[in-house]
Order: sequence, then C-alpha cells, then structure tokens
Amino acid sequence: MPDKGAALSQLKISRVGIDTGRENVAVMSRRSRAFRPEVFRGFSRVSVRAGEKSLLATLLITDDDSLVGAGELGLAEPAFRRLALPPGSMVTVAPATPPGSLEAVRAKILGRTLSAGEIEAIVDDLAHYRYSDMEIAAFLIGSASFLTSDELLALTGAMARAGTQLSWNGKLVVDKHCIGGIPGNRTSMIVVPIVAAHGLMIPKTSSRAITSPAGTADTMEVLSRVDLGVEEMKEVVTACNGCLVWGGHVNLSPADDVLISVERPLSLDTREQMVASILSKKMAAGSTHLLIDIPVGPTAKVANASEAMRLRKLFEFVGDRNAISVEVLITDGHQPIGHGIGPVLEARDVMDVLANAPRAPVDLREKSLRLAAHLLEYDPAMRGGTGYARARELLDSGAALKQMHRIIDAQGPTSCNTGLGPLTADIRAPRDGVVAAIDCYRFNRLARIAGAPIDKGAGVDLFKKIGDRVEQGEPLYRIHAVAESEFDMAVTAATADSGYEIDGKAAPAAATS
Amino acid sequence: MPDKGAALSQLKISRVGIDTGRENVAVMSRRSRAFRPEVFRGFSRVSVRAGEKSLLATLLITDDDSLVGAGELGLAEPAFRRLALPPGSMVTVAPATPPGSLEAVRAKILGRTLSAGEIEAIVDDLAHYRYSDMEIAAFLIGSASFLTSDELLALTGAMARAGTQLSWNGKLVVDKHCIGGIPGNRTSMIVVPIVAAHGLMIPKTSSRAITSPAGTADTMEVLSRVDLGVEEMKEVVTACNGCLVWGGHVNLSPADDVLISVERPLSLDTREQMVASILSKKMAAGSTHLLIDIPVGPTAKVANASEAMRLRKLFEFVGDRNAISVEVLITDGHQPIGHGIGPVLEARDVMDVLANAPRAPVDLREKSLRLAAHLLEYDPAMRGGTGYARARELLDSGAALKQMHRIIDAQGPTSCNTGLGPLTADIRAPRDGVVAAIDCYRFNRLARIAGAPIDKGAGVDLFKKIGDRVEQGEPLYRIHAVAESEFDMAVTAATADSGYEIDGKAAPAAATS
Repeated sequence: MPDKGAALSQLKISRVGIDTGRENVAVMSRRSRAFRPEVFRGFSRVSVRAGEKSLLATLLITDDDSLVGAGELGLAEPAFRRLALPPGSMVTVAPATPPGSLEAVRAKILGRTLSAGEIEAIVDDLAHYRYSDMEIAAFLIGSASFLTSDELLALTGAMARAGTQLSWNGKLVVDKHCIGGIPGNRTSMIVVPIVAAHGLMIPKTSSRAITSPAGTADTMEVLSRVDLGVEEMKEVVTACNGCLVWGGHVNLSPADDVLISVERPLSLDTREQMVASILSKKMAAGSTHLLIDIPVGPTAKVANASEAMRLRKLFEFVGDRNAISVEVLITDGHQPIGHGIGPVLEARDVMDVLANAPRAPVDLREKSLRLAAHLLEYDPAMRGGTGYARARELLDSGAALKQMHRIIDAQGPTSCNTGLGPLTADIRAPRDGVVAAIDCYRFNRLARIAGAPIDKGAGVDLFKKIGDRVEQGEPLYRIHAVAESEFDMAVTAATADSGYEIDGKAAPAAATS
Repeated sequence: MPDKGAALSQLKISRVGIDTGRENVAVMSRRSRAFRPEVFRGFSRVSVRAGEKSLLATLLITDDDSLVGAGELGLAEPAFRRLALPPGSMVTVAPATPPGSLEAVRAKILGRTLSAGEIEAIVDDLAHYRYSDMEIAAFLIGSASFLTSDELLALTGAMARAGTQLSWNGKLVVDKHCIGGIPGNRTSMIVVPIVAAHGLMIPKTSSRAITSPAGTADTMEVLSRVDLGVEEMKEVVTACNGCLVWGGHVNLSPADDVLISVERPLSLDTREQMVASILSKKMAAGSTHLLIDIPVGPTAKVANASEAMRLRKLFEFVGDRNAISVEVLITDGHQPIGHGIGPVLEARDVMDVLANAPRAPVDLREKSLRLAAHLLEYDPAMRGGTGYARARELLDSGAALKQMHRIIDAQGPTSCNTGLGPLTADIRAPRDGVVAAIDCYRFNRLARIAGAPIDKGAGVDLFKKIGDRVEQGEPLYRIHAVAESEFDMAVTAATADSGYEIDGKAAPAAATS
C-alpha cells in the first residue's frame, strides 16, 4: 500500500544473492533514481508493484554500485522469488505505510482484547508476508503475554482458513501429532502404515526440522520423495489411504510457518501458540480425529504432569469448538526414543520395527503400537479395547511393512544422498554404573552440530538407554558425520558433556534383570 | 559468547556495503570454510572475535561468491565499523548462544516482574549491541504491556549508567526537554542563550530527527558545527555556560538509542518508555533541574489534559527518586510553532526571535520566554515570579543574541549547505474563511517528504495560523525542496490534503480583530 502522498517511481529489479530467511528485503542505492531512501528512513518499508503483483519489503541502503545501481531495486531472496519476475523487469517503488492490522497489534500489546475480525486481518497480513520480522515479533509477544479463549479460537480458525484447506468428501480422517522435543521419536512412520493398512484414511503432513536434527519429513525423505504438491498428495492418499509428505508444498496454515520463523530465534513457546499452530494445520488438513502425543520428562518440552494436563485441556477445548475430535496422550519423555538420532539412523530404526527385525528398538515399537491402537479405535467398526491387538497384528504380519512400501512407491524415489556418515567417533562410559539419565535437549543439539538434517547420514546412534548397566570404557553412543568441520565440533561438544548421567552405585534390581 | 561445543574457525573479514541500520549483520557463503551456515540455521546468530574485540551478529547466507567468498566473513555496516578492523583481517567465527539476559526478557513477556539486577544485565547487553532487532523488540514489547514502578526506576537508572556520565563539579545544572511532535518547536535554541546569558549552566544535547523533519541538532547545524565530543562540549560549556550540540557523539544513555531504533518502526510509544528514555539521558548529562514541555492537542503526541497529567506524574515520580528536580509544563500543541518547518526555515525563525526582528513569530518568542522564565527561577538568587521579566530583559536587550553568537563561535562553523530549497510551490486556500485547524502530524510528514532534514533547506513555510482569516486563492504555506523527485512527491501530498481546516462560516469576533 503506497502512501497516497508519494509519487511512484520506476526501477529495474536485480537479484541480490543474500538469503534473508523469510523476510522480504529490498536494497536501494543511496543515490537511487526513484527517491533518496534516506529521506524515507523513518518509514523503512517499501511497496513494490508490477501490474497485479505486489509485495512489501524492508529497505536496506547501499553505497556499492556494483551491488545495486541508481536505476535498480535489489531484491534479496525470498523477495525475488516471491515477485517471480525476471531480472531487469520494471517495478514501481514507493514508501509503504504499514499494514492496517498493526493498529490491532499495538492495541493488543497495550492490553486490549481483539475481535475476531481484527485477528482475521492480522493473520491475512501474516500469511501474505506483509509483516516485517519485527512486526511479527510484536504480534507474537503481544499475544504471548495474554490471549483470551475467544482470541485463541479466532486465531486458530483464521490460521486454518488462511491457506490451502483440504477436504476428503466427508470421510473420517485420522491424524496424529507429537509436540516434539524427543530425539528419535519417529512414531508417525510406523503408525501411518499400520493405520492405512487397516483401511482408515491418514493423510499425514509433517514439517522439516527447524532447530531439531530431523523432522518426520527429513527422515521420510531418506526413503522416498516428500515434496509433493496438493494434487500429488491426494493421489497417494487415494491409492494408499495414507501418506507421509512434507507440509511445505501443501501450504497448510502458512501464517503458522511465518510465526514459527520468528518464534524460534526468540525461543518463545507458549501453550496458546502451540495449540493454535498444531490445530490450525490439522484443521486445514481436513482431519476429523486427532491424537496428540505430549512427552513429559525433565529435558522434554513439557517437564511435569500438571503442565501436561493444562496443555491437554487447552487442546481439547480448542478442538471441541472447531468440530475436531482431539485426544491427548501423555507419554514418557525421559530419554530419546529408539537408537538413532538423525534422518538415516532414524529411518533405519523405523524400517527395523516395520520388518520385525531382532535389533528393532522396543521402545519405538511399543510407543507406535500404543498410538496406532488409539487411532484404530476411531474406526466405528472396531470394538473398544481391541485397537492394540489389531495394531500388533498388522505390524507382526508384515501388513504394515507392505503398506509402507506402497506409500514409498507412490510418493516416488528420493533424490537425497542416504549413506550413513562415514566419520565416526564412539563416546565411552567414564566409569562402571547404570545409566540414570539421558539429556534430550543435548542430543538434539549434538546431532544437529554433527550435521543433521542437512547431512542425512549425520547424527548419533545410542547404544545404551536408561537402566542399562555399563562398564568403564564401553561405548555409550556413536557420532556420525559427513563433513570434517562438523565432526570436530560434535566430538568437542560430546567430550565436554556426554549428555549421559551414570549412576555409580549398585544398580537397582530392576535394571539388572 | 561462542557455544562451548563449537570449534572455532578463522575467516577473513570483508566489507559488505549494505547499511543495516543499527543491527550487526554478517554474511557467510553457503560453502563457507568455517562451517556450513545452514547447519546453524536454527541458531541464526554468530559471534565474531579478533583478539580483545568481539561482536554478535545476525547471520545471512549468500550463494554469490563475488559478494562473500568461502574463506570470508562479510560484515555489513555498522558491524564492519564497530569491529574497526581493516578488510582482510582474520577473525574467529562461531555459532553464538543468545545473551543470557534474554531469559529475563522471556520471563517478563510471560508476566514476571524483573529484579534490578536483571534489568541492569538487559540494558548492558542492549548498550553493547548484543541484541538482534527481534530481541530488542521482544524486550520493548514485553515491557510495553506492563512495568512496575520499581522496574521503571531500575530501567531508567541502568540506562543512565550504561554510557557516558557527565558531571559538573556539583554545580546547579538546568535543562529543558520537549516530548516532541510539534513542527517548528525550536524553543531550545532561544531558551539556552537566554539562560546561559543569565549565568546558569545549561549543557544542552539534542537528537537529530528520526521520523520528524528536524531535530534541534539538525536545525542548530545550520548555524554551527554540532558533532562535538565530550571534551569539546565541556570546553564550550565552560566558556559560554551552555551549548547546543548533537548527543550522538557524547554517548549518553546508548541503550536508549538502541531501543528507539526499534520503537520507531513499530510506532510503539508508551509513557514508561518515554520517561525512561528522556530521564536516563538527562541523568547521564548531569542535569540537576529539568523542565519538561508536554504539548497537548488533537494532532500532538498527547491528545488531552488527563493523559498529560498522568505523564506529568510519572516524570515527577521517576525524577524524584533519582535526585533530579523535574518540573512539567503542559503547553498548547494545537498547531505548529513559528512559521518554518525544516532546519533552514526553523533556524531563520530562531534568529529572528533572538534579533527581535519584526517578522519574528510571536508564538515561538512567547513560548520560549515562558520556558526560560521557569528555568531562570531555579537560580537561588532569583525571587519567585521574576523569571519572565528577566528572560524578556535578556532577549529584548540583545544579550541572548550575543550569547547565541558566542555559542556558535565556540562550537565552530557548520560544513552543511544551508541555502533555502530553490524549488517552491504555494498551497492556496480553497475558499474564504478562518483557519480552524492545522494538522501537526501531516506537516511533520510533508516537510519530511520534501526532503528535510537530509536537505537542510527543504521544508514548509507557514503563512497562516489558527484564527487567521484567509481569502480563496491566498497562499496558506510554501513548500521548499532541493530535489525534483521529492518536490513532486511533496506537492502531490499537499494537493491531496493541505493539512489545513478552513472554517467557511463567519469568523468569530476574536479572529477578526
């Protein structure tokens, strides 16, 4: 929205090869032919238009003519990609006034409750990249301090409606979601084939890792393509009852992606924002029945049962009012699930469970069966209490494995390098004892430092879990990396703090069995 | 603060000619030799070290080798300037963990009251540019919703102590400050010479315009140099009892400048932040007696008397607890003060008042005398009620003008182009009537669009004020500009909305006299 008092000036667009994350950034010469950007320093945002296309961008100034000349407007990634015009195209540039919905953001900060219409306008501007990072932070923080129940409902609904909305012809559509934080917790890749093999529809979209070493989409990508569009995804679901795709190309609740891009660097994570984020995505995906996994443990996202209970109530409340049946399972989040942390290692664990291999991690198998059991009982034809037996039958018989291969074939082959990281180092027990604790937060970070998920084969392979007896010098886990520099950083980090707590006293009876 | 788990990598610094405002920004190649920046995407900040020097910067990624190569670390302005090392110098780069004080910021957002120690740590990190723009926004917004009285006192004190602290050997030091918003309101440049001529010490530092068309420093720069360092400023004050310099080189309350750089783009302006901002600067300047001017009017910063009163109480409370005697004057903010808006035009008005020229604006003269009267009565030798007569005597006798010339000579000659903008357009009355209102906000913006303060000679010269009778076609004001493009934009803006309200009915008796 150009200011009505500002004349319009034409500039040629050029591409500035700098990745500015999610924010639109434009670069102008201090000697620009359009207007001297310093005159508009106080405004700091520009509107860029070409025919029907337009965007708002944060303005940076340059004195370097080789970067952006006086007759040019430089567009950094992703603004260049979003405008989608060839370099040299003429655009109209004008100082921009901020989106009108920012008035409501300011009111929220100062303590006013917002109407559903105001929240709808904010979400629309967020979803269309009209807010700067700072403006996004303003909304996030303003709503982090306090949000009424009505505001939370309005926010969740507006977010769900702001992007693609899938519908499945009135069918029962089940889904599961874990709030995250537990390394190796790849239950979706086991639950989806079990539930789809049974015949229920489970069109699962997942995120890629942002600060963790692997999202379900990163791990699934070891086995198949995951960047499917909406139509391709529907074909897979029609053929296989389920899918395991990346949500990024499906554009479900795009405002959520925008909010997350600022929430993460600020490490802001409120219950309300978590509920709006997860439920808006699932509502947009057309889910009718949703199972939410909340792991609880000292180094998990939720540290104790009472906090888990408050979160559960909030999920159920917002789900209820939005005609989506939400069930919440509170699970053990004391340590990583399975052995592997990082895409290739996690994919190995998943396939071991599906193939009933002897080395398959028991905890990953048991947790997946438990979650699948709940989902299967949404089938009106199932009798209550029979879900677990049915899930085990589908897994043990190989039906789930067969279904997984169908899904993999339907999604198509991966183009990633899926070899395991060849640089390895074993981290060993400093003394005899019993494993008393494993720090989830540290292992997420360690696998990330080793190169996951950029390097699919990087990560950590755990040999010991809580309760296991270890001898001094025995390997606790193995670091895998692809690049030398990251390997060194990971080994240094693991040497400084292994992430394991070894109890040196006599092991309790249970642990010795 | 590098993460202890991260190995340290050496890169050569290069200068990236992009002005990123206040924020430190570093650019790394996606193929960097130090580490692949994408691996650290979730962290997004890096620490840069060279010997004793270090800074934290927000990380952007490039694929353009001509911009930043694999062995280089690009530093945008102002990070390059702050590190102050020649291009090609080797630096150590590591993923950075955020400043520890951010924990307190998160706690504040979630509703906890902060201790004085926590606030001190936040202010120290702000003053040393350790926060990203988003992190600054987080603190600003978190404290905008609610701040206890103790938190406000701690914040003001910590800000005052975070930079240069001037002291004047126990002397009585007076100062004045206007909260801003009224175009042409250049009373300081008349008050300072009057008060200094009387013999009181008034070491005035002022800001440059950020979103307005002129700060006192911009206008004073038409007459003399203003970018004096601390020692130069002290010399001027010793010689002349007063000065009129830009605060930018004196480094008073640097955390305030950091907060303002984010407050402005967000248009966040709370009473608490205003009080902390103004009083921290004045405490650091060593003022003992401070007069605050709060203009009230429909297009001023403060719209009504009750809001002005709440602000006044807050100024008095924080001043009291910090041993600075604060007096608040509530003044008429219905329209611009004087005729000129923009540095050259405002400097003309100021010198006309000091010279007792017939065309000197009466409102600027009267307001300055009133403010000077209050300041003069801080002199223990003055009897109560005699301040106004003394101020008028100093002005009418030419003593104030003489003092102003002394200050100008002591500060040294300006190096600016101080000619009046040669491109002019008169905006005329659309019909006969009486001027009923003049929009302060619009005139700030209009003079800014015309090029002020970048072009000292750009701005607006008002011919009519509220109550003046005008005939159709008679000029209301004249736009001055230096550059064609800005001239066109300003004329377009003024044509769309003149900023004047003309009452077409018979003028009230008072206005016809």
